[in-house]
Order: sequence, then structure tokens, then C-alpha cells
Amino acid sequence: MANQEDKFKKVVSHAKEYGYVFQSSEIYDGLSAVYDYAQNGVELKKNIRDYWWKAMVQMHDNIVGLDAAIFMHPTTWKASGHVDAFSDPLIDNKDSKKRYRADVLIEDYVGKLDAKIEKEVKKAAKRFGDSFDKAQFLETNPRVLGYKEKGDAILQRMGQSLEKEDLADVKALIEELGIGCPLSGSKNWTDVKQFNLMFGTKLGASADTAMDLYLRPETAQGIFVNFLNVQKSGRMKIPFGIAQTGKAFRNEIVARQFIFRMREFEQMEMQFFVRPGTQKEWYEQWKETRLKWHLSLGMGEDNYRFHDHDKLAHYADAAADIEFKFPFGFKELEGIHSRTDFDLKAHEEHSGKKLQYFDPEINERYIPYVVETSIGLDRMFLAVFSNSLQEEELENGTTRTVLKLPAVLAPTKAAILPLVKKDGLPEVAKKIVEDLKWDFNVAYDEKDAVGRRYRRQDAAGTPYCITVDHDTLNDDSVTIRHRDTMEQQRVKISELKALIKEEVDVKNWLMKM
Amino acid sequence: MANQEDKFKKVVSHAKEYGYVFQSSEIYDGLSAVYDYAQNGVELKKNIRDYWWKAMVQMHDNIVGLDAAIFMHPTTWKASGHVDAFSDPLIDNKDSKKRYRADVLIEDYVGKLDAKIEKEVKKAAKRFGDSFDKAQFLETNPRVLGYKEKGDAILQRMGQSLEKEDLADVKALIEELGIGCPLSGSKNWTDVKQFNLMFGTKLGASADTAMDLYLRPETAQGIFVNFLNVQKSGRMKIPFGIAQTGKAFRNEIVARQFIFRMREFEQMEMQFFVRPGTQKEWYEQWKETRLKWHLSLGMGEDNYRFHDHDKLAHYADAAADIEFKFPFGFKELEGIHSRTDFDLKAHEEHSGKKLQYFDPEINERYIPYVVETSIGLDRMFLAVFSNSLQEEELENGTTRTVLKLPAVLAPTKAAILPLVKKDGLPEVAKKIVEDLKWDFNVAYDEKDAVGRRYRRQDAAGTPYCITVDHDTLNDDSVTIRHRDTMEQQRVKISELKALIKEEVDVKNWLMKM
Repeated sequence: MANQEDKFKKVVSHAKEYGYVFQSSEIYDGLSAVYDYAQNGVELKKNIRDYWWKAMVQMHDNIVGLDAAIFMHPTTWKASGHVDAFSDPLIDNKDSKKRYRADVLIEDYVGKLDAKIEKEVKKAAKRFGDSFDKAQFLETNPRVLGYKEKGDAILQRMGQSLEKEDLADVKALIEELGIGCPLSGSKNWTDVKQFNLMFGTKLGASADTAMDLYLRPETAQGIFVNFLNVQKSGRMKIPFGIAQTGKAFRNEIVARQFIFRMREFEQMEMQFFVRPGTQKEWYEQWKETRLKWHLSLGMGEDNYRFHDHDKLAHYADAAADIEFKFPFGFKELEGIHSRTDFDLKAHEEHSGKKLQYFDPEINERYIPYVVETSIGLDRMFLAVFSNSLQEEELENGTTRTVLKLPAVLAPTKAAILPLVKKDGLPEVAKKIVEDLKWDFNVAYDEKDAVGRRYRRQDAAGTPYCITVDHDTLNDDSVTIRHRDTMEQQRVKISELKALIKEEVDVKNWLMKM
Repeated sequence: MANQEDKFKKVVSHAKEYGYVFQSSEIYDGLSAVYDYAQNGVELKKNIRDYWWKAMVQMHDNIVGLDAAIFMHPTTWKASGHVDAFSDPLIDNKDSKKRYRADVLIEDYVGKLDAKIEKEVKKAAKRFGDSFDKAQFLETNPRVLGYKEKGDAILQRMGQSLEKEDLADVKALIEELGIGCPLSGSKNWTDVKQFNLMFGTKLGASADTAMDLYLRPETAQGIFVNFLNVQKSGRMKIPFGIAQTGKAFRNEIVARQFIFRMREFEQMEMQFFVRPGTQKEWYEQWKETRLKWHLSLGMGEDNYRFHDHDKLAHYADAAADIEFKFPFGFKELEGIHSRTDFDLKAHEEHSGKKLQYFDPEINERYIPYVVETSIGLDRMFLAVFSNSLQEEELENGTTRTVLKLPAVLAPTKAAILPLVKKDGLPEVAKKIVEDLKWDFNVAYDEKDAVGRRYRRQDAAGTPYCITVDHDTLNDDSVTIRHRDTMEQQRVKISELKALIKEEVDVKNWLMKM
């Protein structure tokens, strides 16, 4: 665990040092849970977005794109359920003036009971030594059983109260358990209130036309309200998909883990419209297709796993996450949801407009079912970045820090390095830069010894270093060094472009799907 | 004028019909001055953004990118002047409950005086016929001179009152002129108040930590607050630039002209940091470079002109617009501004952090000067789209509607059409689709007669139609039809990809700069 935390701290500091991610408004001491993408971060993010877009839109005849605005008509969020149900139960401590999620206070209390069980287990294990049977102990020790029973009862009561919106009972539970403010210990609590996670604002200045708006908390609804316009103007036939990338906003009470959970974030979503009754097949197929997309990046099969949801959201008839092994453990990276006709139906009801499709193949009119694939772009960034950051022990006993980004996603594809800053080598190197920059991002670096420059480019994630030396002046060849293997190879300058292109071309990576 | 309005209406309806731009939340009767980009619009917008990014970032050694969040620390907007001065003077009519910009009411009044002058001119021209000397008439006719004098006096008084923030006098002026509510005629006005154009929201739920936030009204400040972090982590040497594309928001009272002025819009900005004293040279150079970028798209030199600002914003020591000939006349498309050290200085003062650069070449530490290039992506979209939409009289007397988008920006590069839906032609056409789609967006279309399909692709902006006919089965060749010339040419299937690539490759277009 300490090791995981260390690793994660390194990820955060490396991201800042090498120009990937900065705390937002850092000169003003930052804005909590908001981040800016720096000069390398913006390119990595863009490359991930393009890799997704190309795989989802360009490669599929029957998927088109969309770019809906962040501002939407407020009734959208009434229809989607966000106005009524997208909220957390909050409670304020009257003395410390601190605000908490009521459910988290209670869960933390139960967590302490679990810790007590752990303590009993440890004590017993020490007492009984090799003959200790943990499973049996957990099932028979009266103290452990008491803790467990109490914890279960608390969670059950809380779950039922939240479900019934009986917030008075959630407060009563906190008081009965004697839970105090974690900061001050005070037990002087306000009532529990539901707090909506959507950011609100007002559109228009006129007293009679000002409108309460929300910053969209998800991009999916932009697709649903445009479904029929896209279908008609694009002459789309079911099954077909609409894909979109864009910002969404959630006023999280406790946002944490760097760019994993932010208040402002970017989603990459695709809603696939299908004939009712076929949704389960498509759901299975999209689970498979999306996993293949991830695997095409070569970040290790063992780092992914499916997590099928037992408890389904009100709009879904099947749902699974693709989880990724982040520095803090396996967590959701992407969700695949069979959303039924819930959303389109809700928009029909709230707008009074028909959102139906006439299916010429079966001569029927219906509201399509929807299978959604939804991935957080920032989360994908964190997956790629943290997985790529490695420290390697070299044969000579030193350590190198290397950011083994998939070459297709790397911000800079090649650094061109003159061995020395004289003898005409910089001129040759700059000519190579001028030639290659038309096709991909390249950097020129002449400062410090070449070994140090290699390490700098390793840490920045540049897959290829191209060194111009004195021999170059005679043989028109350069040394190309591969970031991951550190292998060096001599190639003609005239062959450079094709060689690198082959390795970084989106097309060649997508072919691995 | 009627012609211009007609043309503009056609632009708006064509944009909807062919899947470029939809009214936002249309099923809920729309959201004023907010638009969604549809399946073709999203691709055109993306291609414009990429064309800008490639020209500005990838092609310049000394320009890097950034992607700062929409949310920034609120002190940012205090420092930039937006909290205090980014506002419009508003007045409400107490009877109609309608709100107006006070300055616009007065300008409209003066506009009516101008209309009266025009009327006098027309009358006189009719009376005097060929012997009419308009210039002389304008300078001598007492009635005309009276209108002109009155108008000038009104505008001068308004300008002075606004400058002095004497809003009472602005109201007095409206009352003295007897200006009524354009809707109801009522002259029952409230006081004039300044209304800030920034959208506000609240971050965080806790009573003691909730923070008033703004949605950024421009992207530039995200670059300024990150200036030093980028310079240091990127080892940048002055002169260097930071480029960014992203959303910004303004609560415009009267937003209009389709996507020309929206409440939610996207900017493409580059801030170039230079040594104090060199800003005028760089300003001139960026004016030239940016115009070249526009001209590289081949939309006609006559459609662009510079407009140098006489009256400068408080932060600028030089400013010019690149104006484009929109359907409603020449209007600002891009701004080039020499912003001095105003912004960095203001952020130093408000943050207490030094934002200075040590210049090793002259051994001096200073706050850099900034030259900015700022273009609205939506506005650029409108420029490209409206300029490309043309109606052509053909030799046979019919009219064709064609969207002559620069091929590099077109959403779909080629449509593959089997001449008939049988005899194995669809199979060959689909094989071509499968081959080409790895490199660019292509469409397959087998519905309707081929002539009709050509027209459909013309109207959608697809530069190439590739027709598979019965001869194809023998000679492995297809007919490629060029959208703009309607010329047809027979080419081998194996040569298709290279031929189209040559025409649509960003690189080949940028070379025209």
C-alpha cells in the first residue's frame, strides 16, 4: 500500500515536471479537483481522443459524430432524472461548519467496526500461531460476530432510508451511533439534505426570460435529444451509433485521486441505437470491441478486467465496467451499458415530440434501444500515463526513469540531437527537423551530453532519438535509438520518415484490434 | 440586402439539412444562441481545429500547446479586469418587462437619423438625375447637416457618459430623445445598470468553502497563469508561444447571426511571449503569418481585409482584425493584438508570484510582452461554410447546389458509388471503402440514380465521387468525379488512395502558406 502511494506520488510529480499536468490556477494556490493539461499533456490527450474517434467513427460506416453544446435546455435534465435524483445526502456540523456526505460518515463508522474485527483476527493469529483457522474464527468468535452483525444492520438501515428518501432517519442513525465531526468531535448536526451535483448558472439577463441552466453532468443526453435529427439528415439505418467527446461537470463533494475524479472532465461516449430485443447481443459485442481497442495499445492484458454490475441503474438492463489496474488498484476505466429505451422515452414524454424510428426491414415504428460505451478521457490519460511510467534498473547498476507511452500516443515522436554543437552537426539536425515536422511532432535538443539528452527524452516519453554525428556528414546516416529497448540502429536519413511513420501511424495500431 | 438575407437563410437551412449545425435542444424548442454541431459539422469543426493546430504548434519549434480548464480561480478574473469591466449597460422597460442594452437603443436611434439622410439623398438623386453630386449634397443640404450634427452629438455624449460610468446621464439621454421600448412603445424606463457578461456558478457544497466561480469568458488567461510552468518545464526560450483551443462563455444580451455570436463558443488562441521593445515587429509578423494561413485555404483574397483599430483596449498598444466577407458583410474573423505586459503584470500583482523570465542572451530578467492571435472556431466555421455554399447555373439550364469546402477541411473526402445495386458492383465498391477508410473518411451510397447521388454529395461538400461500373469488373478502374469542376477521370483502383491523399493532405495545403 505504501508502495502504491509512493508510485502514485511519483506519477503526479512526474506529470508536472515533464509538462503533462499542472494544478489549475496554481499561481492562485490552485482550484480543488481541477487540472490543466500542459504542453505534453495536451498532445497525449489529443492523441487518445483521436485514437478513439478514428476507431469509433472513421472505421465504422454506421457510426457518426456529434458535438453538442455544454448548455442544454433545462428540461433535458428533468427528463434524464438528474434534477431529481443526481445528488448526495449532505449533513453540516453546526459547530465546525464543516459539511460531510452523511452516507460516508456512516460507512466510515462501519469501517471502524471492520478494523476492530481485523484487530481481533491479528490478536488471535498471534495467540494461536500456525494452528489458527481464520475462516472458523470469523464464523465463531462472539465479539467478531457482534461487530459484523452491528455493521450489517447499520448499512441495511441506511440503504433502506436512502432508498425511501427518509433523510430524517439517516440523521437519527448518525445521532444514535454517536458519530461526531471527524474534525472537531462535535455531535451538533443539522438535518440531512440532498445536494444536487450539477453546477447551475443563469442564461440571459432579462428578468422575465432568465433561465436556470446546468452545466451538463454527462454528454450522453446531447446525443439523445439530437437522435432524430442525425438519423434523418444522415439517412442512418438502425443499427447505428452516434459518438461524441466533450466536457462534463460534477460538483463532487469529495473529489480526489488527481485526474481520476475531477469536477471538470471530458467524456468519450458512443450511443448505439438498436432494434428492441437485440440489445443484449450488441451489449456483448461492444464489450468485446471496446476491450480490443484497449488491448491494441499493448499495455498488458493483465491490467484489464470486466466487472459486471449486479445492481443496475434505473435505466439499464445490463452493465459492465472495463476496469484498469491504476496505481491505487483496479478501478473503472470504461462503462458499457445497455440503457434500454429509457432516455428516448423520457425525452418523448417531456418534449411531446415523437422520437421513433421507422424500420423499413420489418415495417415497424419503434423507440430504439440503446447500448452505450462511455469512457473518461482524463481517466484514460491517467491509465496510459501511470502504466507507462517505469523505473528500470540498468545493467550498470543505475536506474533510468522512462515513460513507455504507446508510440502512437506519444506527444513527440522523435527528438533530433546533434552529437555536438559544432562542426555543422546542428545544421544537419535542423534540416532533419524541417523535413520530419510536416508529418509528426518532433523536437530538437542540443543541450548537455547526449546521454543526458537520451534520459530526458526517455522521461518525457519520446519513442525515438535520432543522433547526428560526424559520420553523418559522410554517410548521410544517423543513429536511431529506441526508447524502450535502448537499442541503436544506423539508418539513412532518407529512410527515417518512413521508418518512424510505420511505428507511429494510427492505422497500424488500429490493425491490431 | 434582401439578397444577403436570403443567402444567409440558405446557409442556416443548408447547415441543418445536411447535418452540419442544429439548434441546440431543438426538441425542447431550442436554447437561444446555442448550437450543436451535427455529424458533418463536427468533422468540419475538427478539421479546422486540426489545421490551425498543425500550422501553429506542430510546424513551429517554439510554439507549444496547452489545454487549461474552463474553471479557473476567481481571482484570475479580478486580475484580468473581467470582474470589474466586462459588462454591458442594461435598461429595463417597466411596462413590457423587456431588457435592452442602453447603448444599442441609442445607436438604433442614431441609425434612424442615418436612414433619414439616405432618404433625402434618394429623393434628391431622383430630382436631379445625372447632374446629382452626392458628396456636395451631403456637405451642403441643411436638413442632412442637421441630422448628422444631431447624431454625432448624441454618440459623443453617450461615449463620454459611458466612459465616466455616468449611467444616470445615459438614462437621461434616452428620456430626452424620447426613445420608447421597441416592442411596446412605452417610455417607462428603469435606471441603467451594468450587467456582467460572465456566467457564474458555485464550486463545492460546503457553506464555508463554497466559491463563486465563473465560466471563462476567454481562453487567454489560462495561458497567462500557466506561462511560467510551461516555460520552465518545457525549457522554452523567448520568443516562444503557447497555443490553446477551447470553449469560452459569454452571457450576451442579444446574441444573433447564427453561430457568429453565441453564448457558448470555441476559441483558438496563441499568446506569443517576446522581449519588451520587440512587440511591434512580432505584431506585424503575426498579422502576415495569420493572413497567409487563411489564404492557404484558397477562399479568395478579396474576401479578407485588415482593420486596424484606432481605439485600443486598455491592455493593447496595437490591434488589428482580419475581417472576412460574411453573408452579412465584412466582419471580424480573427484578432491580432499586441497586449504588452498588461496581463502577466496583473497576475503578478494579484497572486504575489513573480512571472518573470530570465533572458540569458541579454542577462536580464523581465516580464515578457505578449502578441496574441485569437480566432473564433465557430466564426471560422461560418466563414468556410457560407463561402463554400454556392448555386451554379449549369449549361443545361438547371441549377446545382454545391458546397465547395476546401478539400482538406471536408468532412467526407470521397463517396463510393456502385452504378447499380447488382452485378457485383456493390461488393467492389465496399471493398474500396474498406481499403480507403483507414486513411480518411469515406461514405458508401447506393441509393437513387447516380446523378442524384452526385448532387447529394455536391451539396454535402464531398470533394470526390468514385463510381464503380460494369467496366470496373474488367479493367480494375473507376470513374472519379471532381465536385468543383464536375470533371470525370478514369483511374486504376490501385491509384485511388494516393490520388485522393495528395489532394486532402494537410501538409500539401500548409505548403501553400
